[in-house]
Amino acid sequence: MYDRHPTSQVVAYNEFLFLVDCGEGTQLQMTRYKIRRNRIRHIFISHLHGDHYFGLPGLLTSYGLNNRTEDLWIFCPPPLEAIIDLQLKAAGTVLPYPLHFVALDKEAVIFDDKKIRISCFPVSHRIPCWGFLFEEKPKPLKLNPDLLRTYAVPSEWYGRLKSGEDFIMKTGKVIPNEALTIPAGPPLSYAYCADTAYNEAIAERIKHVHLLYHETTYLDSQRDKAFLRGHSTTRQAAAIARQAEVHRLLIGHFSSRYEILDEFLEETKADFENTELAVEGATYFVSG
Amino acid sequence: MYDRHPTSQVVAYNEFLFLVDCGEGTQLQMTRYKIRRNRIRHIFISHLHGDHYFGLPGLLTSYGLNNRTEDLWIFCPPPLEAIIDLQLKAAGTVLPYPLHFVALDKEAVIFDDKKIRISCFPVSHRIPCWGFLFEEKPKPLKLNPDLLRTYAVPSEWYGRLKSGEDFIMKTGKVIPNEALTIPAGPPLSYAYCADTAYNEAIAERIKHVHLLYHETTYLDSQRDKAFLRGHSTTRQAAAIARQAEVHRLLIGHFSSRYEILDEFLEETKADFENTELAVEGATYFVSG
Repeated sequence: MYDRHPTSQVVAYNEFLFLVDCGEGTQLQMTRYKIRRNRIRHIFISHLHGDHYFGLPGLLTSYGLNNRTEDLWIFCPPPLEAIIDLQLKAAGTVLPYPLHFVALDKEAVIFDDKKIRISCFPVSHRIPCWGFLFEEKPKPLKLNPDLLRTYAVPSEWYGRLKSGEDFIMKTGKVIPNEALTIPAGPPLSYAYCADTAYNEAIAERIKHVHLLYHETTYLDSQRDKAFLRGHSTTRQAAAIARQAEVHRLLIGHFSSRYEILDEFLEETKADFENTELAVEGATYFVSG
Repeated sequence: MYDRHPTSQVVAYNEFLFLVDCGEGTQLQMTRYKIRRNRIRHIFISHLHGDHYFGLPGLLTSYGLNNRTEDLWIFCPPPLEAIIDLQLKAAGTVLPYPLHFVALDKEAVIFDDKKIRISCFPVSHRIPCWGFLFEEKPKPLKLNPDLLRTYAVPSEWYGRLKSGEDFIMKTGKVIPNEALTIPAGPPLSYAYCADTAYNEAIAERIKHVHLLYHETTYLDSQRDKAFLRGHSTTRQAAAIARQAEVHRLLIGHFSSRYEILDEFLEETKADFENTELAVEGATYFVSG
């Protein structure tokens, strides 16, 4: 109603661009915000309400028109595959790239790479709906090149040092690992929880994440309506953030009845100070 | 690519708002251009390529969220009903208003009212695709109030005068109809032809319309590509307009590869002078 678009997020990690939900208009928004959409190979659809996926058929079609050839994986509730199949058939479209559907049906690790792991877990909405947890894996220690030279460490030791071993010189002298390496920083994590009613089980599932996106469709005064509609309020999102002891909270999915969003931020910050509004087109960095 | 939206038009006639095609983003555009969407009761979908209907599921869903209760009719190729049904089912949505699908499968009058008639006719695309012809019915004559008084015409004669009868005074004197009435102007007509390759049969079907919207996806230099893709060029649209002896031509559906559209207008006007570009958000009046 106030010219806000439905939900879609891009999670960038190293060479990966993961698309999370794809509401109507996502393609145009990606153009506006200069997202390199061809780098997306994995799309995660939380649930099958239109504001979270009605932009997907258009994106899949555009990839085809642009002669995409790379594989594309869609992680989604099972009925989506049949919908997309019917649409492609009605359009007489044969996509020039392999499209893979991965049905979400239980809590699971759905993507596992050397550096990052992505899991899905159920959240509480009116229809089956999934949260997504992005977890960086522990990073190897970094070597300190100056000290490697000082102690004349042979290169065949580098891998062992990165994984934490102490260095034993030919003389038998032990140089502690900490003297030769630089800590890599903690593995970072991001959790996406939308759409969902207040559910304390979610807090257990996303413990200590560095950034939590949790929906706040309603202000606290609409708590009853939130419950009935399978949504959360400001204070409920803050409560989950507190219980999960997350570092930072991002709130979004505001009901279209609200033009001004200040109150969302105020109410949430009253209970969880480190909160930000999810603003269209903005980038949020996950840090330790 | 150049921030142009896919196809959708609103045809306004008296109290009616007819929606013709509904590409992705139509809802947001309707908000932007202050279209009173609740007045729409009839939607015409030309064919099932996404750029002509991917905005429809969102519109139908929004009507539901806004508690629409009025009937809505969708005239469309048959597969659309199954697609929408699957989407509603996956979303757990029961619409609060009656939704009627009318399958387009042959040339026919699909809407017939006291004042306007709407027909569909096949055009030539890669998949089944329909043009739409909006024809106003002959309008009754208007009465000239001053002369009615002069001749003391009783009110029970008004209907007969409007339908063209002469007035016979009690004395037996005949007052010709033309002396008492004002011509109502010609019945107006509008034809929508997209997407379609060049097809002279279309010209026969839309003879003498006051306004013709005909797609021009490509410039004339891309004539071969247009044929292969089931689209038309500038000069082909102009040729149809000439053959059909239409009053005015509106061109649109420009390939996203073109940023500047001047050449479309120039090429078309060279063969059919009374041509305009279909511009987003613009209103075109149909006149005699």
